Amino acid sequence: MNRHLISAGDLTKDDALLILDTAEELARVSERSIKKLPTLRGRTVVNLFFEDSTRTRISFEAAAKRLSADVINFSAKGSSVSKGESLKDTALTLEAMGADAVVIRHSASGAPHRLANWVHGSVVNAGDGTHEHPTQALLDAFSMRRRLGNLDGRKVAIVGDVLHSRVARSNVLLLHTLGAEVTLVAPPTLVPVSIGTWPCEVSYDLDAVLPKADVVMMLRVQKERMNAAYFPSEREYSRRYGLDRERFAKMPEEAIVMHPGPMNRGMEIAAEVADSARSTIVEQVANGVTIRMAVLYLLLGGETA
Amino acid sequence: MNRHLISAGDLTKDDALLILDTAEELARVSERSIKKLPTLRGRTVVNLFFEDSTRTRISFEAAAKRLSADVINFSAKGSSVSKGESLKDTALTLEAMGADAVVIRHSASGAPHRLANWVHGSVVNAGDGTHEHPTQALLDAFSMRRRLGNLDGRKVAIVGDVLHSRVARSNVLLLHTLGAEVTLVAPPTLVPVSIGTWPCEVSYDLDAVLPKADVVMMLRVQKERMNAAYFPSEREYSRRYGLDRERFAKMPEEAIVMHPGPMNRGMEIAAEVADSARSTIVEQVANGVTIRMAVLYLLLGGETA
Amino acid sequence: MNRHLISAGDLTKDDALLILDTAEELARVSERSIKKLPTLRGRTVVNLFFEDSTRTRISFEAAAKRLSADVINFSAKGSSVSKGESLKDTALTLEAMGADAVVIRHSASGAPHRLANWVHGSVVNAGDGTHEHPTQALLDAFSMRRRLGNLDGRKVAIVGDVLHSRVARSNVLLLHTLGAEVTLVAPPTLVPVSIGTWPCEVSYDLDAVLPKADVVMMLRVQKERMNAAYFPSEREYSRRYGLDRERFAKMPEEAIVMHPGPMNRGMEIAAEVADSARSTIVEQVANGVTIRMAVLYLLLGGETA
Repeated sequence: MNRHLISAGDLTKDDALLILDTAEELARVSERSIKKLPTLRGRTVVNLFFEDSTRTRISFEAAAKRLSADVINFSAKGSSVSKGESLKDTALTLEAMGADAVVIRHSASGAPHRLANWVHGSVVNAGDGTHEHPTQALLDAFSMRRRLGNLDGRKVAIVGDVLHSRVARSNVLLLHTLGAEVTLVAPPTLVPVSIGTWPCEVSYDLDAVLPKADVVMMLRVQKERMNAAYFPSEREYSRRYGLDRERFAKMPEEAIVMHPGPMNRGMEIAAEVADSARSTIVEQVANGVTIRMAVLYLLLGGETA
Repeated sequence: MNRHLISAGDLTKDDALLILDTAEELARVSERSIKKLPTLRGRTVVNLFFEDSTRTRISFEAAAKRLSADVINFSAKGSSVSKGESLKDTALTLEAMGADAVVIRHSASGAPHRLANWVHGSVVNAGDGTHEHPTQALLDAFSMRRRLGNLDGRKVAIVGDVLHSRVARSNVLLLHTLGAEVTLVAPPTLVPVSIGTWPCEVSYDLDAVLPKADVVMMLRVQKERMNAAYFPSEREYSRRYGLDRERFAKMPEEAIVMHPGPMNRGMEIAAEVADSARSTIVEQVANGVTIRMAVLYLLLGGETA
Repeated sequence: MNRHLISAGDLTKDDALLILDTAEELARVSERSIKKLPTLRGRTVVNLFFEDSTRTRISFEAAAKRLSADVINFSAKGSSVSKGESLKDTALTLEAMGADAVVIRHSASGAPHRLANWVHGSVVNAGDGTHEHPTQALLDAFSMRRRLGNLDGRKVAIVGDVLHSRVARSNVLLLHTLGAEVTLVAPPTLVPVSIGTWPCEVSYDLDAVLPKADVVMMLRVQKERMNAAYFPSEREYSRRYGLDRERFAKMPEEAIVMHPGPMNRGMEIAAEVADSARSTIVEQVANGVTIRMAVLYLLLGGETA
């Protein structure tokens, strides 16, 4: 496996399966109430967050601490970065301070890739602009596999604001690698122009896609991006692309519902759908910690402590 | 004992004594310079703070770390909460991330109670609106007991802005349970309308109460709430309800002075009173860490690690 | 050695050499890939930062964690301090919470000295106003010694905004103690009026100083302080006091270039100079963690844990 995790597209099928299988083992250890492993004792994981994302930061922090690593949180606010320090100098600083892994969240697509050129430690992309969020895709795949078994040939619908979604892109790339068939469902204004190069189908008709889906993944509506240029109104969006009770009834009986969180209950997903037994939303959060443990373990575990 | 600590009123006398006795043992261990115990190794305590309160957050953090728990600080600022995520979704997220205990500070009275309905871990109320702050009451009772011995029949005066004080309410409930006799002393405009249901006396005359008190607990004046509707001026407040040198001289020789901090020196309490040998103000802070260790130990310690 | 580290001027030559030698040993341990030592297990180090300084805070945090201490970060923002709590009450609070060492950064010169009067634990000055930053001076001396060997008789030029620089002052005091000869180079408007009492030379001509220097330490230009009162313009500053390629060529072949960071590349230092093999800038950051480990070890390590 690569020394970094920048893009879901960099993972071979073997890489991805190794991560999922490792996560499966870690989940079993955790189910035996062994919450802390000594694996990364003495290692330092830095959370370098240029954007606020408490959920993702906490998930990585919990993962690293369960492996006994030390965690240092670095928020760009109020740091030298706001005094004009370059990303490169920040990277060299973290490196010099002994960071074994840097988990980076940045508003600029490509920032984790640039960071990886400057440090000897491992870089993990925790979301860069509208580009990628590979650990989200891994935890989603892990959640699907735990519910449905093998992903080969499974039909996955990803629904909503694909244009602004790094979650959608990473999921399409990883699910394709794992053999699933993905259909993106979105308003025409919220489909990226590059969509022709993505390994997936596109549809504008949610009702046509639902009856054949094994998995329906609803994306978060970024309300601040909802404006006349993209779509008429929240109500109209919800009417055409929201997963309400009626639409939920059209899904196959074994099909599951996913959402990366945080949800807009009543907007892209009805509260009763989100809370149903076929929703994996809470599991996804727990699986997020497990997947991040697996990633940190595989990236850092092999070196001498 | 209950699985949560939401209200001082939920504690039976046996519960309260168990916490105080456990804190006494922990204080003795600490006095033997053993600062860290392995009791909660592998457990995760989340500090979920919707209001800033560095002192309380640090006190819980220090308590958890001395018991070898992992601590994750979650500040609502900049989190998904500010993107409109519900308290319930936040709760489910923390639960899924493996929080064994959630320490919550919230501006809404009742938030910890609602949280307790949604999570399997323990919920500890670190202050909710004007409602309760039970660990403050426990540390106050512990501080009294270390100075005065048994609290049965002791006379405690609580002085100041009772209307906005969760500290006052939690203290009244707990001290009543422990057999003490509490008198609230406040301007008529700063007494809650529900006061008739509280198990305590009310007085508007500090000078009449002081000579009989074993304990005088001064509340912090919330200057931002000090306006014409409640009281004419800071000077007038200080003149009538401040514990200055003259009033301090009216207290019995063995009586002690308390304050939950942070103080307005010169306002509700004179600097020389705050710094006198009969003031427990610094001990209260140290006792706060010890009491919170006892609470976390009793809530979490029994489960399989 | 003293119980606190407030000023580089308080260190005797023996004190300073003890810290440097201890850091040397710790660096060797670290080079054997032993990243974590159990030395300070059970001890609590509080980072009390009244000014934002992520780099310095992280450096102390990493140092304390590598010695297995617990670290609590206390940012004055949003704390009781902003509600008007005095530094003294904050100090007593941290003391009561069991802080074994308080690392303080404050905008007021002298704040660490006052703090040291109120607490039993050790106080480490992490920068106070324009006064001192002793661990920066120690890490700089350590970086020089690792490159050049003994500092006795070495010629060090410190260049830039000396007036506002606590780094300059601490370096002058420590380097003098260690036997080096320091020349400050600055525009006349950026030299402090007290300069006559500093144990160093002053020059206004960088080009005259460079050919004889063993070490050239460039200070960060505080752009917000750059105004007509001090200097005409950034370009003019850079032209006269910037270390560009041509000036770099005038330095002796063995001479090294230092900068405390964060740099303004292209302003006080050219990018190619900053990145040259004779620049110690990245080493300084790594050495910062090592020196802070040595300081915490020597201040706290001797007591009973």
